[in-house]
Amino acid sequence: MIRFECDYAEGANPKILENLISTNLEQHVGYSKDSHCENARHLIKQICKNDNIDVHFMVGGTIANLTVISSILAPYQGVISADTGHINTHETGAIEATGHKVLTIPSSNGKLETAKVLEMLETHANDTNAEHCVQPGMVYISHPTECGTTYTKAELTALYEICQKYNIPLFIDGARLGYALVSENNDLSLQDITNLSDVFYIGATKIGALFGEAVVITNDKYKKNFRYMMKQKGGLLAKGRFLGIQFETLFENGENGLYFEMANHAVGLAMKIRKACEEKGYKMLFDSKTNQQFPILPKEKIANLHEKFAFYEWLAVDANNSAVRFCTSWATSQEQVDELIKNL
Amino acid sequence: MIRFECDYAEGANPKILENLISTNLEQHVGYSKDSHCENARHLIKQICKNDNIDVHFMVGGTIANLTVISSILAPYQGVISADTGHINTHETGAIEATGHKVLTIPSSNGKLETAKVLEMLETHANDTNAEHCVQPGMVYISHPTECGTTYTKAELTALYEICQKYNIPLFIDGARLGYALVSENNDLSLQDITNLSDVFYIGATKIGALFGEAVVITNDKYKKNFRYMMKQKGGLLAKGRFLGIQFETLFENGENGLYFEMANHAVGLAMKIRKACEEKGYKMLFDSKTNQQFPILPKEKIANLHEKFAFYEWLAVDANNSAVRFCTSWATSQEQVDELIKNL
Amino acid sequence: MIRFECDYAEGANPKILENLISTNLEQHVGYSKDSHCENARHLIKQICKNDNIDVHFMVGGTIANLTVISSILAPYQGVISADTGHINTHETGAIEATGHKVLTIPSSNGKLETAKVLEMLETHANDTNAEHCVQPGMVYISHPTECGTTYTKAELTALYEICQKYNIPLFIDGARLGYALVSENNDLSLQDITNLSDVFYIGATKIGALFGEAVVITNDKYKKNFRYMMKQKGGLLAKGRFLGIQFETLFENGENGLYFEMANHAVGLAMKIRKACEEKGYKMLFDSKTNQQFPILPKEKIANLHEKFAFYEWLAVDANNSAVRFCTSWATSQEQVDELIKNL
Amino acid sequence: MIRFECDYAEGANPKILENLISTNLEQHVGYSKDSHCENARHLIKQICKNDNIDVHFMVGGTIANLTVISSILAPYQGVISADTGHINTHETGAIEATGHKVLTIPSSNGKLETAKVLEMLETHANDTNAEHCVQPGMVYISHPTECGTTYTKAELTALYEICQKYNIPLFIDGARLGYALVSENNDLSLQDITNLSDVFYIGATKIGALFGEAVVITNDKYKKNFRYMMKQKGGLLAKGRFLGIQFETLFENGENGLYFEMANHAVGLAMKIRKACEEKGYKMLFDSKTNQQFPILPKEKIANLHEKFAFYEWLAVDANNSAVRFCTSWATSQEQVDELIKNL
Repeated sequence: MIRFECDYAEGANPKILENLISTNLEQHVGYSKDSHCENARHLIKQICKNDNIDVHFMVGGTIANLTVISSILAPYQGVISADTGHINTHETGAIEATGHKVLTIPSSNGKLETAKVLEMLETHANDTNAEHCVQPGMVYISHPTECGTTYTKAELTALYEICQKYNIPLFIDGARLGYALVSENNDLSLQDITNLSDVFYIGATKIGALFGEAVVITNDKYKKNFRYMMKQKGGLLAKGRFLGIQFETLFENGENGLYFEMANHAVGLAMKIRKACEEKGYKMLFDSKTNQQFPILPKEKIANLHEKFAFYEWLAVDANNSAVRFCTSWATSQEQVDELIKNL
Repeated sequence: MIRFECDYAEGANPKILENLISTNLEQHVGYSKDSHCENARHLIKQICKNDNIDVHFMVGGTIANLTVISSILAPYQGVISADTGHINTHETGAIEATGHKVLTIPSSNGKLETAKVLEMLETHANDTNAEHCVQPGMVYISHPTECGTTYTKAELTALYEICQKYNIPLFIDGARLGYALVSENNDLSLQDITNLSDVFYIGATKIGALFGEAVVITNDKYKKNFRYMMKQKGGLLAKGRFLGIQFETLFENGENGLYFEMANHAVGLAMKIRKACEEKGYKMLFDSKTNQQFPILPKEKIANLHEKFAFYEWLAVDANNSAVRFCTSWATSQEQVDELIKNL
Repeated sequence: MIRFECDYAEGANPKILENLISTNLEQHVGYSKDSHCENARHLIKQICKNDNIDVHFMVGGTIANLTVISSILAPYQGVISADTGHINTHETGAIEATGHKVLTIPSSNGKLETAKVLEMLETHANDTNAEHCVQPGMVYISHPTECGTTYTKAELTALYEICQKYNIPLFIDGARLGYALVSENNDLSLQDITNLSDVFYIGATKIGALFGEAVVITNDKYKKNFRYMMKQKGGLLAKGRFLGIQFETLFENGENGLYFEMANHAVGLAMKIRKACEEKGYKMLFDSKTNQQFPILPKEKIANLHEKFAFYEWLAVDANNSAVRFCTSWATSQEQVDELIKNL
Repeated sequence: MIRFECDYAEGANPKILENLISTNLEQHVGYSKDSHCENARHLIKQICKNDNIDVHFMVGGTIANLTVISSILAPYQGVISADTGHINTHETGAIEATGHKVLTIPSSNGKLETAKVLEMLETHANDTNAEHCVQPGMVYISHPTECGTTYTKAELTALYEICQKYNIPLFIDGARLGYALVSENNDLSLQDITNLSDVFYIGATKIGALFGEAVVITNDKYKKNFRYMMKQKGGLLAKGRFLGIQFETLFENGENGLYFEMANHAVGLAMKIRKACEEKGYKMLFDSKTNQQFPILPKEKIANLHEKFAFYEWLAVDANNSAVRFCTSWATSQEQVDELIKNL
């Protein structure tokens, strides 16, 4: 069985494990106050080309999302998200459990449309009985989205400007950020992301680490006391060094470093799958240029593929065809992809 | 500088790292549904001598505490704890953030006295206006306590019987459980802990792992849907395999395994420190037989020691003397302890 | 200006005020443990034809909703509601503030369709990764709905049977329950409501009282310790007598009593408005047979009406027409309605 | 049976009921946006001699406390209170249910000592691992306290200055504020209270109203969006006029108005009880000059009194004596007090 189910089926990049071993007997203070975390913060500031950001390391995406969102919203505020957003669908109500409503906007491709966000913000601002409704207090997007799609620089700029106008923060869930940064036609650098958001995170769990998300707070207003929130939510790792060492490994060579190398590898293979699908006449459910591909296949074809390959069925498109998801990672091999393509 | 500050200053036991490497390219499903987690669960059932327990793996103590407690309490219930309890003092209000009061009972040595728990439960049960007060809904202890002290089998039995009588669960925070299990005169086996509690956890973050706490639910009533809670709180690790592999490594040789070996090592060295202190005429603040020792030292002595050693000052006992804490771990060496003793 | 804006523009029925005065110097214990509350509970049991229900008095609808819902749901559960439901739209996130997601189902007329509820419950039950999603833990409807529409006995029975099958409670928000109970072709008695729900409330704030909702818990499973929840949420009125006296007044003559008399009065006038609208050729946005009517009027007509009458514009139907809402109450007079009809 | 159990045993002052009746058929917008609320706000600004305050009307003390506190604290902050404080003992964990810890300071007479507050604030400010602890974010006192005691102007000033220094708000629970304002030797006016706090409330439930607390926000920082919080917590009364009318009635004659008249009446009678007790040689548990008196009586005397009088036993002082509480209100008569004194 060859697995294209997700991008976290294997362990961690061996380089990371090597560095854990070589530093293992060093003595460090806990809770990410150690020198590896300090260095990793420095490297992330360099690659974001911004010294005035706060960087915090957390173990996973759900706890990063709930900690960031609940640290910013007032009790009567909610967070705007595409209805397909991870926080709305696959986190078991983590945001609501901190007291906040997710204010959803329908989306057909995972992306949040600026016009619809604007409409929601305007409607609330003009409501004379606004206090009977949840106040929109933040915009959440993920880049790439759950559908593998990405924002252009123009789109992100437009969204951020709306947020600025209404004085609410834009938070970017970057669980798979690397895959967007290396994708075809991408025009958004990490520096742009830093400039066009208030908080975002650089995900590593799904890009070759054991675990870890680097939360970057760019807006001064949201920096203060974030560590209190991390501790309260159970997100301050005792042996924080393990987060520092991983992010050091990922970013020690900057834009030529391991993080981008692994993302490139995975996206390159994913695009080969996409191209093969399209050549065989299959349509794609979403226009993804990242490591997740969603071809629409005949049901018999899907049944055949399941004999050799593990992957998700995403959506029944009609009586005879369904969209599936193929996911690649740092550990996917050219041979595995060739085998898949041969069987398509 | 030799560090006796805490038991998580170093990385992980090398055996654990080796096993991470040897399994690294295996493909596994996420979220602790993989075969390593399954095997680790099996090993823990064996060592607890109980097949009818549920075992869940979480990353750290705070998130284990808040997830367990909020999964069990009704909204109007609180958790009884010694005022020195970790959940009351050093978790930034993690329990209250889930909506529940910590009902405190004063303690001089970290232990919860059965008589005082009984009094609190009786007072509430007899209050005709009880609904104006938080209802005690659970008892929380840690074993060993924050003060390094431990419960005897008789004490734990008495406490558990009170809980049974009032139909509320007993939850044991075992962040340092191994150190208690190997301590001098200990008469509580892991099997006893299993029989005399409703939920407990076996801590590994502070006993040689990268991270990890194995939550054991012994009471059927609290088993259902615990994974929903783990996910909601951000405590379900994507690459759950890393938890499974660690606990496999710790328990693959049962009672002769790595977990107990490391605990023994640390406690043996701690007791040497204690003995040396007592021989030099220093009193101990708490009667700890585990890996934390709290001698009361003259302030000049403390100042001298700080030149070579890192450790916490715990409490100013009088104008001239303070209690300090020396903590040993799997990585502490005989030489380091000898050097400390020489300087006492 | 004649007001058709809402059903709580005036004070309380004079009979209620008289009873407040005549009982004013009686001394009573607080918190609804007094004899008037006891009697009111008895009267409500009689009219529900069920002695095995618990009755609690609360001040308003939002606090009744949030207290009931948070008293029942497990932390990882959400409540299913029509997207138009009051808890989803006009309570400022009160439910989310207690930690629970509102799981919405689109509705065109305010009613929740059984088939869609069933689909949501089945989908979750069959999801092998269900723990990543909020578990549906309750169904919330209001009767009448926000759109003035009502459920038939067959519809409510079908919905309740689905809830029974999936072992989750059905909660009926009855803020305007009386108006449904007296509506044309209604086939649901208070006894039916009692039999076909787990919790519901009889609203009086919007039917002639100063304030007050009588929460009726019919399912034994949800009765215990509800008063703790009321106190914690700030919903246990100190001078609870004022709730008891009001509900005594409303129900002392059973089915011929003041509550039904006022509801009848308001609905009768509302239906006159509806009939007049239809005779003039205006369409109704919703098929309401209760005290709220939603005719679709030309915009100039609406502008004209605003000179003499206060009412809400509900929805722009097209460029030239909007639906408006006319609301009647116990205090609306035949003359006021005639004047409105004359101007339509 | 003559009742001295509490100050809310009777209904409301008849003047209030008269005004409810005379205004009953007026049509008003809901949610305290009506002209009576507007006028009541104006009257309260006048009597506080401050035009720059926000005034909101809520139904009861618990919901006022939880709404104010949760509207101000950051998620990682707690509220400092005497351990005897109402929010810590008799609100079923209402504050914790909003996510915040009550940080308690021991008190022997219900009052919070400035020195101890200062110590708590300093300790946290100097803690290098402060983020592991709940951050003190507010000071809560009640005036008078649960023990009937009151703060002097010097004491309140000292406490407020500490709060100012540490940049945290002082919140005064004034459920029985009137009784303090009219008490012997009182040197704190309503204007002083306004100047020496950030938020406080003027309680009326326990001083002659049907219900109602007027929340006064004096610090601009905490004014914005408070109505969102009121709505979310279920504390925005639909027929808000009933709050407005009551507070109009209480304050329409300013310092000579009904509120102070009723408070004076109750405190005068309470002091007669105190004087009689002292003349008979009974000691008082607390030095209360307000409407609650706590004499220490022999147990046989208490048993005798229970035949004719209802009152609380507060505390067993020794084997033979207990402190009891006698409470007077606007409705207590001179004859009832004479009868009590005769039997002491």
